[in-house]
Amino acid sequence: MTEEAGGRTGAVMAAIRQRLAAGRLAPGERLPSIRGFAATMGVSPSTVVEAYDRLAAEGLIRARPGSGFYVSGAVSPLALTEAEPRRERAIDPLWVSRQSLDAGPDMLKPGCGWLPAEWMPNTAIRRAVRGLAQAGEAVLTDYGATRGALSLRRHLVRRLAGEGIEAGADQLLLTASGTQAIDLIGRLLLRPGDTVIVDDPCYFNFQALLGVHAVRIVGVPYTPTGPDLQAFAAALAEHRPRLYVTNSALHNPTGATLAPQIAHRLLTLAAAHDLTIVEDDIFADLEPEPSPRLAALDGLARVIRIGSFSKTLSASIRCGYIAARPDWIEALVDLQVATSFGGPSPVAAELIAGTLADGSYRKHLEALRRRLSRARREATARLEPLGIKPWIVPRGGFTLWCRLPEEQDAAVLARAGLAEGLVLAPGNVFSVSQTASGLMRFNVAQMTDPQVYEGLTRAMARTQPAAAPPSTPSP
Amino acid sequence: MTEEAGGRTGAVMAAIRQRLAAGRLAPGERLPSIRGFAATMGVSPSTVVEAYDRLAAEGLIRARPGSGFYVSGAVSPLALTEAEPRRERAIDPLWVSRQSLDAGPDMLKPGCGWLPAEWMPNTAIRRAVRGLAQAGEAVLTDYGATRGALSLRRHLVRRLAGEGIEAGADQLLLTASGTQAIDLIGRLLLRPGDTVIVDDPCYFNFQALLGVHAVRIVGVPYTPTGPDLQAFAAALAEHRPRLYVTNSALHNPTGATLAPQIAHRLLTLAAAHDLTIVEDDIFADLEPEPSPRLAALDGLARVIRIGSFSKTLSASIRCGYIAARPDWIEALVDLQVATSFGGPSPVAAELIAGTLADGSYRKHLEALRRRLSRARREATARLEPLGIKPWIVPRGGFTLWCRLPEEQDAAVLARAGLAEGLVLAPGNVFSVSQTASGLMRFNVAQMTDPQVYEGLTRAMARTQPAAAPPSTPSP
Repeated sequence: MTEEAGGRTGAVMAAIRQRLAAGRLAPGERLPSIRGFAATMGVSPSTVVEAYDRLAAEGLIRARPGSGFYVSGAVSPLALTEAEPRRERAIDPLWVSRQSLDAGPDMLKPGCGWLPAEWMPNTAIRRAVRGLAQAGEAVLTDYGATRGALSLRRHLVRRLAGEGIEAGADQLLLTASGTQAIDLIGRLLLRPGDTVIVDDPCYFNFQALLGVHAVRIVGVPYTPTGPDLQAFAAALAEHRPRLYVTNSALHNPTGATLAPQIAHRLLTLAAAHDLTIVEDDIFADLEPEPSPRLAALDGLARVIRIGSFSKTLSASIRCGYIAARPDWIEALVDLQVATSFGGPSPVAAELIAGTLADGSYRKHLEALRRRLSRARREATARLEPLGIKPWIVPRGGFTLWCRLPEEQDAAVLARAGLAEGLVLAPGNVFSVSQTASGLMRFNVAQMTDPQVYEGLTRAMARTQPAAAPPSTPSP
Repeated sequence: MTEEAGGRTGAVMAAIRQRLAAGRLAPGERLPSIRGFAATMGVSPSTVVEAYDRLAAEGLIRARPGSGFYVSGAVSPLALTEAEPRRERAIDPLWVSRQSLDAGPDMLKPGCGWLPAEWMPNTAIRRAVRGLAQAGEAVLTDYGATRGALSLRRHLVRRLAGEGIEAGADQLLLTASGTQAIDLIGRLLLRPGDTVIVDDPCYFNFQALLGVHAVRIVGVPYTPTGPDLQAFAAALAEHRPRLYVTNSALHNPTGATLAPQIAHRLLTLAAAHDLTIVEDDIFADLEPEPSPRLAALDGLARVIRIGSFSKTLSASIRCGYIAARPDWIEALVDLQVATSFGGPSPVAAELIAGTLADGSYRKHLEALRRRLSRARREATARLEPLGIKPWIVPRGGFTLWCRLPEEQDAAVLARAGLAEGLVLAPGNVFSVSQTASGLMRFNVAQMTDPQVYEGLTRAMARTQPAAAPPSTPSP
């Protein structure tokens, strides 16, 4: 984007840079006059103006109105090299996030929680971006409405209607991200010291986020068909939680699917204990067939639906949403204005709406599901010789929650993996009870490169206890 | 953006819509086959596919793989009309925000805190958007680095260097907005019950934001050269505040400028009481000449600099930043990942960087300052006959903090203004001590339409006490 100017303008810029580097132009000194330098360089005065303007935009030189351009006095050659070292800090819920987000292009990321860029609907996004370049001035520069772009809210109303949820315009709020949606809900409904139930295991950032709210986090074991209801009921009775935060559709990290009976009984329990449920629908579009939704059964009475477009459309065009009771939305609007002065970038919401309206998005999803299905089979087959076995085979999505060979500790392996250029997601970052040290979450879409398995093999060999050398023949 | 398809595709879509509206296609019913309907409509099968895909993207119909397209069962004709009524709720710090953000195109907004869309650098933004359409896939779809786009951080490092602030790469963090920057800082440094000093008057959303943090807000009177230092010292001694949040450059709402001596003595006081200062630099680019900056004097030791691009570039492409001590930035990165899973939309940061790198941005600012200067003179002259007088004449910017005629109450006038189609900003939304009922903040850039003054005149006539009828001739 911020590309260097080419051609003649670039040549003039390069000539000035050279003089600066050689000390022939000192800080505070006046630059050659535009006419004079145009003659020197054999270009038109307007080319020199363009070059000076660009150098001024970079801060290297400064314009003094009516007096010409001067070398900036204070600019030091700040390299701004990316001085962020790989962190060796303890494996906490933020570890995988930061490792994944800040990983250089040389790292492989079988532990990260999103799809590779080339799996996303780039053609449709580019079309939407080109459309944005023609949009009205208000779209490009104004603050948006407090509830977010109408075009995208319309899409979400239709989508919810398709699930059987009749949400009105006053029940939808766009947010800067799915995470921020939960954060706002937390600010509305939680007070320090409250208790919140999460699944064990659950998406690790739920823990980091709830930690910011200074609440007590209680984990309830997650089974292949949903939360363990006996444990759930016990947690309700013992802790009187204010909130339960969970993934619908494909559960993170297990890839499990909520069974209809579990969903119904869960809502009955929630009603009996006046529990509010936040249902994060972020993986919905990766499902081959729709699975039960708490918000659909409940009708947005005590369930708050949130979601985003980061997993199937773009994580760079950030946008999330909340569907909830009108009075809660009204309060959330105030909270979002107070803390962010609005929701997502209005241009982001327009780009999302534009991409979704493109007829190709449905085909993108179909192709994506097929591709994921193949990748899942392939990863499962290639992990098998390493003794790494899926806990369940998910119906869709990209996560594979796997049991490691008995002698392996996932956290130790994740650290060894980092040295091999792999970002891994060790089980215990997902587990409130810290009972997942023998499990690891893999992302099958990030494992098409054979180097993932080679690195994993080396890391496992290094972390295996010396007592059981790999050379010992098995009986 | 989400425009309807034209031509043949549009005709096919319209034909299907008509059948749906007429009940000739019922929910759950299979749509005509692609070949069959192509023959009926006299178009190619690919046109019908495109039309069906778009209708499916809208949710009106659904594809069943291998079986064709069906009318969606659950879609009701949800109008999603903008059912947000004008609020009559008490004039609180959020009132002006929501009135301004949600005002329809028929409203005039002399009370809002930003420039009209046509005053922004739309040509440069469109160029940056076109550049984005050619960007790599990772820019379009990946999560960004935790500190935000390198291109924009580089620009900010240079900009700070130009002020004499040597900020390293580890001292900068991009955020989703300037407001969110303060929110994150509050989450890091404030605990419920802490005290925070703000200027009286101050930007009203500081109060709303600090309210979310459940802190005690103490106002210190703001003079034409900065805070009243005697009152500031007394507040420090009495309340032991944790933070002072203020605007540098052009103070909001007064348009006042901090004097160098006040800045120096303020920092000395802050050091003696271990006070941290958040300096919001949001209006910097509107200054005709740079004024003293606390961060420049202090060198980012106890001053945290924040800013955004909403006032001079775009509020739709949302992005803010924080420059602070490296250890604070490190902690803020964690907080931002936990609560938003990243900062601004990476595409937004790229668009901002692209627009700033465009040589035309400097010229845009120069033209903007001249235009504002004219608008300020004009508004001052047109408010004068109404008895509305500026408290000071600001050096730059768009705010004009004005005293109303003695018999007028600003809150009453703001309510009357709403009925006249005007969003006004009554003084007390800016005042912690509620001592600004006779003052009003005007935005000169939003007052070029004569209807503003006509509406204001009518509103003032209506709110004038009956004891002094306007028909009475003055002596």
